[in-house]
This record gives sequence, C-alpha cells and structure tokens, in this order.
Amino acid sequence: MPIPTVISLDAMGGDHGPPVVVAGVRDYIRRHGGEGVRFLLHGDEAAIVAEMARHDLTGDVCDIRHTDKKVASDEKPAQAMRRGKGSSLWNAVEAVKLEEAGAAVSAGNTGALMAISKLILRMSAPGLERPAIVASWPTLRGVTAVLDVGANIESDAEQLVEFAIMGEAFHTAVHGGVRPTIGILNVGSEDVKGHDEVREAARILREGGLGLNYHGFVEGDDIAKGTVDVVVTDGFTGNIALKTAEGVARFISTLLKQALTSSLQAKAGAFIAMPALKEMSRKIDPSAINGGPLLGLNGIVVKSHGGADAKGFGNAIRIAVDLARSDYMKTVGANLGRLDSVMHAAPAGVPSEETVS
Amino acid sequence: MPIPTVISLDAMGGDHGPPVVVAGVRDYIRRHGGEGVRFLLHGDEAAIVAEMARHDLTGDVCDIRHTDKKVASDEKPAQAMRRGKGSSLWNAVEAVKLEEAGAAVSAGNTGALMAISKLILRMSAPGLERPAIVASWPTLRGVTAVLDVGANIESDAEQLVEFAIMGEAFHTAVHGGVRPTIGILNVGSEDVKGHDEVREAARILREGGLGLNYHGFVEGDDIAKGTVDVVVTDGFTGNIALKTAEGVARFISTLLKQALTSSLQAKAGAFIAMPALKEMSRKIDPSAINGGPLLGLNGIVVKSHGGADAKGFGNAIRIAVDLARSDYMKTVGANLGRLDSVMHAAPAGVPSEETVS
Repeated sequence: MPIPTVISLDAMGGDHGPPVVVAGVRDYIRRHGGEGVRFLLHGDEAAIVAEMARHDLTGDVCDIRHTDKKVASDEKPAQAMRRGKGSSLWNAVEAVKLEEAGAAVSAGNTGALMAISKLILRMSAPGLERPAIVASWPTLRGVTAVLDVGANIESDAEQLVEFAIMGEAFHTAVHGGVRPTIGILNVGSEDVKGHDEVREAARILREGGLGLNYHGFVEGDDIAKGTVDVVVTDGFTGNIALKTAEGVARFISTLLKQALTSSLQAKAGAFIAMPALKEMSRKIDPSAINGGPLLGLNGIVVKSHGGADAKGFGNAIRIAVDLARSDYMKTVGANLGRLDSVMHAAPAGVPSEETVS
Repeated sequence: MPIPTVISLDAMGGDHGPPVVVAGVRDYIRRHGGEGVRFLLHGDEAAIVAEMARHDLTGDVCDIRHTDKKVASDEKPAQAMRRGKGSSLWNAVEAVKLEEAGAAVSAGNTGALMAISKLILRMSAPGLERPAIVASWPTLRGVTAVLDVGANIESDAEQLVEFAIMGEAFHTAVHGGVRPTIGILNVGSEDVKGHDEVREAARILREGGLGLNYHGFVEGDDIAKGTVDVVVTDGFTGNIALKTAEGVARFISTLLKQALTSSLQAKAGAFIAMPALKEMSRKIDPSAINGGPLLGLNGIVVKSHGGADAKGFGNAIRIAVDLARSDYMKTVGANLGRLDSVMHAAPAGVPSEETVS
C-alpha cells in the first residue's frame, strides 16, 4: 500500500472554524476522490467530531489532535509568535516540521500564520525576509500565478528572481504548466522601462542560466489576458494589483446585478439567460481559486481566505495535496541553489572552483 | 462680451487625426453647448477644413494654424524634443505658453507630449521630475481621481503630497468635488503599514497644515468602492493598478459576451435585457472618462487616449475647458507654496522669519 499524503488542518482558523474546515474536507473528497489522502485536524475535539458526524467522515480519513488554544483573528504577528505555541494554527504547521504531514492548511490570521510558519519551518529562500503569497488569477487562457501579493513590501532583484523560481514550480505543480512562461510586471514592455530592481531581475532571468522560460516585461492588463503563466512583482504592487482587480470585479458585478433587476423586462431577460450567466460566474468564482501557498519556507503551508466557504476550503486542500505530491520542494531547492551561484559567483574571467560542477 | 475660453488642439495626434479631433469638437458642442469656447486647431489645413465642412463648423468656432509637421506615434521623447519644433503637437502646447489658449489637448504620443510640455511650459511642482497623469476612475459613488498613473516611477513623500494637492484641485474643477477626500494607496489601512515614502507622505498630510481633507490609507479595492475622491500613489503602482483594472474589466466583459451568445436561449434573454445592459455599459464607457491632464506644469495640457473616438475626444475637451475656467492653477499654486514652507521650514523650536506670515 502506498504511503498516504497527510494534510494538516487548522480546524479553528477562519471566520467559521470546524463547520467550514470539515465540510471542506468532504468537498475535497467529493470532487477529487481523496484516495491516498488523510487529514490531521487540530482544534476542539468535540466540535470537530460533531462536524465529522454531520459529514459522514470517519477516523480512517480524519485524525483529531485536540487543543483548546487558538490564535485570534486580530492577534498581531509578534503576539501570535510569543503566545501561539500549542494553538491549532501552531500545531498544524508544526506537524509539517515533524514530518507528520506533507502540507498544512489554515484559514487563520495571515500575519500570524506567516510569522509562526517562518519561526517553525524557517525560510528556504535566502533573499526573502518573509514568505511570499501567490494568487491564482483566472485569465482568458487559464490561470496565471501572480506573486508576491502581500508580504514583501520592498523586493530587490534577487527576491524577484526567487519569486520567479517559486512561481514556476507552483504553476507546474498546481495548474499543470509545462515550462510555464514568466513575466515581470512593469509599466511598459521595453527593456529600458521601470526601476532598477525590475531591470536587474530581468537581466538575471535573461542571462542567469537558471533555465526558466522568461518571456519579458508584462503590463497590468497582461495579467487577465493570460499573456504569461507566472507574473512576478514586489509584494506592494502585487497586493495593490490583486485588491484593485477584486474591487473592479465586484464593481462590475454590482452594476450587472443592478441592471438586471432594474425593470420587469430586464428581470425577464436575466431569468431566461440565467443558465449562461451562472456558467459565467462559475468562471470567476473566488472559491474555485481559493488557497494561496506561503512560498519560500522549508515546507508547504497554504493560506485559505478567512471567509472561504466549504468549496473554497476544499480548493485550498487541493492545492496543498498537489504541492505535497509534486516535485515542488525539490525543483525550488535546485533552482534556488542555482540562483545562489549566479548571485555570488566570482566575477567573469576569474575561475572559481565552486562554480565548476 | 466675456473673453472666450480658447482650447488649443493637436489636430494630427492620435490614431485618427482630424476626423476624430474635429468630430470631437462637434461632440463637445453638442453635449455642452460650447458657448464662450473657441478652438485653435494645429495641423494640416486642407484636412482640417474638409472635416470642419463635414461637421458644419465655421471659422467663428475654429481657427486653423497650419503646419505640415507632426510627431510620429513611435517617436522617442528625446527625439521629439529635438525635432518636434513646429509640429502640431508642439504648436498646440506653445499656444498655452504664449497665452493664446487656456489649455491644450493632444491624442499624440504620451512620452513626446510630456517631454515637449515640460520643455515649453516647465514644471510648477518643484518635487516632480515630470508631469503626473491623473485617471478619472468610475466608482460606485461617482468618479475618483487616481494619480500618478504613469510618469513618475519612483515617488518620494514630497511628490506624493504634490499629487494630493493637484488631485484635489483637479477633482474640484472637473468632477465638482467639495473638499474632496484624499487617500494614499497602501497594502493596509493601519498607520504602520507600507514603505517609508507612503508613511512620511501620510504624516505630512495629517500634520502639515495644508488644509487638505486627508482620509488616511486606502487599499486597492477602495478605488472602485469610491471610498475617497482622490487616490494618491507613485506612478509605477498607479500605472499597474489602472492597467490591471482595464484588463479585468475587459476580461469580465468578454466572459459576459461569450455567456450571452452561448446559446439561443441566452441570446433571447440578452435581447430582452438589452436596454438595461446598454445602460450599464454606459456607466463604464471608457470614452465617458477619456482625458488625463498632465499635472504639475505651468499650464494645462490634457492627454486624450490615442485610440479615442469623437465622444472620447469631446470629453477630453470638456476636461480642458473645465480646468481652464476653474481656479485650478491658482489653488495648486497656493498649496504648492504652502507645501514648500512645510518641507523647508526651520526645525521646530527655532524661530524663522520666513515662516512668520
């Protein structure tokens, strides 16, 4: 019998806790079969057991690790690091460190999850101060991975290249990309555009011998076009691009709802077109793309949106399973090693023993 | 008789030249009456005369300044500065400098327009290296001005505050804002978030005694919500936010069109709901918000989108007229003066003659 993939879950995280986390397990199994996958649920045993019964899940699939303690949704990262030991979030991540699980999923407080994950697992990407968050962005051509969308406010060229390495491996593992194309987000596509960091990162990706499929600079509208599979940017710009896009999507959907309920005639038309409109909203359903891994750690941790529903949490589990079963960690490790030699190689012309393989 | 407002037009700029520029004049007059407004059209006389005849426009409204020369759409800014003298773009801007016109409008090459405008008119904002571009962004609550969306790639705190000053005066003049609220775009709304530049700009706006209606930090999704009237950001982030939003809007409208033509039933529903859907698309019609002034110059220059149609160009004219007739230049001048005292005041506690009014 093959060794099962174990996914460690923070059952108390997010706005809803066990009702959504356990329903998310059921949703994952319903959609993806769940063969060879087992779950470690950390949190209040009684609440978890009750939800497992409701969803007809047994101890064959779900193991419970009881704890009374949880990290509050408004707890500051520093506080969470000091006081979080033994909480459901902490224990979920620690199971990855202890190799009891191949990945952890939490819908808890992002800052706390990042701080605790970094403390327990440590960073594997030497240039990163904290984990990068990747967003799976629906496009006209599929899904594009955009990173960093939140944590690393100022990113130098080395960090941007690390994002490229991690984004490539993520896209391959989770979205099935074959030699995914990589673009750096900029204000124009010509080589001379943008600030020093993006131009230096572009140079390394073009010349660095990292073997990545680098496309070049891309602009904001290239994200939704799906021009490339992986869009690399600093955490400040990425976070603002992502939230701006969410705001625009919500704005248009509000206008559409207003329009289609503005008169009896409009309502009649909407009723008739409803199956097609539902099919459309399925394509931009946030729960279908929920789940952003924290990249750059020595282990896999996936952050689910705090307000995600069962389907959304189920998708975050799918991403965790795909990453845990893939070569993600190995590919990233190898490419980060290559980047390290590029960044710290002896100047051209001076032979160096270290760079001779 | 009151002195007419004269608007100087680069008749050869943009993808279409005179057919759109002259039709834009007609569109402006049809929508806004055009009383007390006259136009100076720079470019090929024969082509302009032919279009004026088509649109029933006479010499009472349009004056022609012939030139054979035009700036190419792909001309580099430095080249345009060296070789652009006497072109329709150059002459349109020069008419503002010579006080023949209260504002200029061009749909020409953005880089060339910025470089030539800066050369001819000079910057009035001491912190800015080049003009800022403001976007009028449709929101759930009206229109929000977002700047800079393109030119100033790296913006320090002083520049961000200059954007706030210019954005406030722009919103008042063009969108009728009364004490418009101002927000700085950031990755969170807490005071501790973001990099040094945004935190320092926030401090100046909070404490600087500039008398602006400062709201605080806003996030990407606050733009489309209309949380504030003016969103201030560096040109890199602003350009990427704007283009990302355009990409998302186009993505959703493509999906909507696909959905509503996906079956006979969907087509029937769409046909019935069509009046409501048309009303909706009117609200996000790009030509209704076309026209981005270049801010920070000693004079008013409005950039129209190169591909704008007559309605779009007509709207750029409206923005130029509104700015030329308002207190925009005076308000900005006074507030930039105040900022200058704040930035270069003697340290607290040391009396200074200059700061005693």
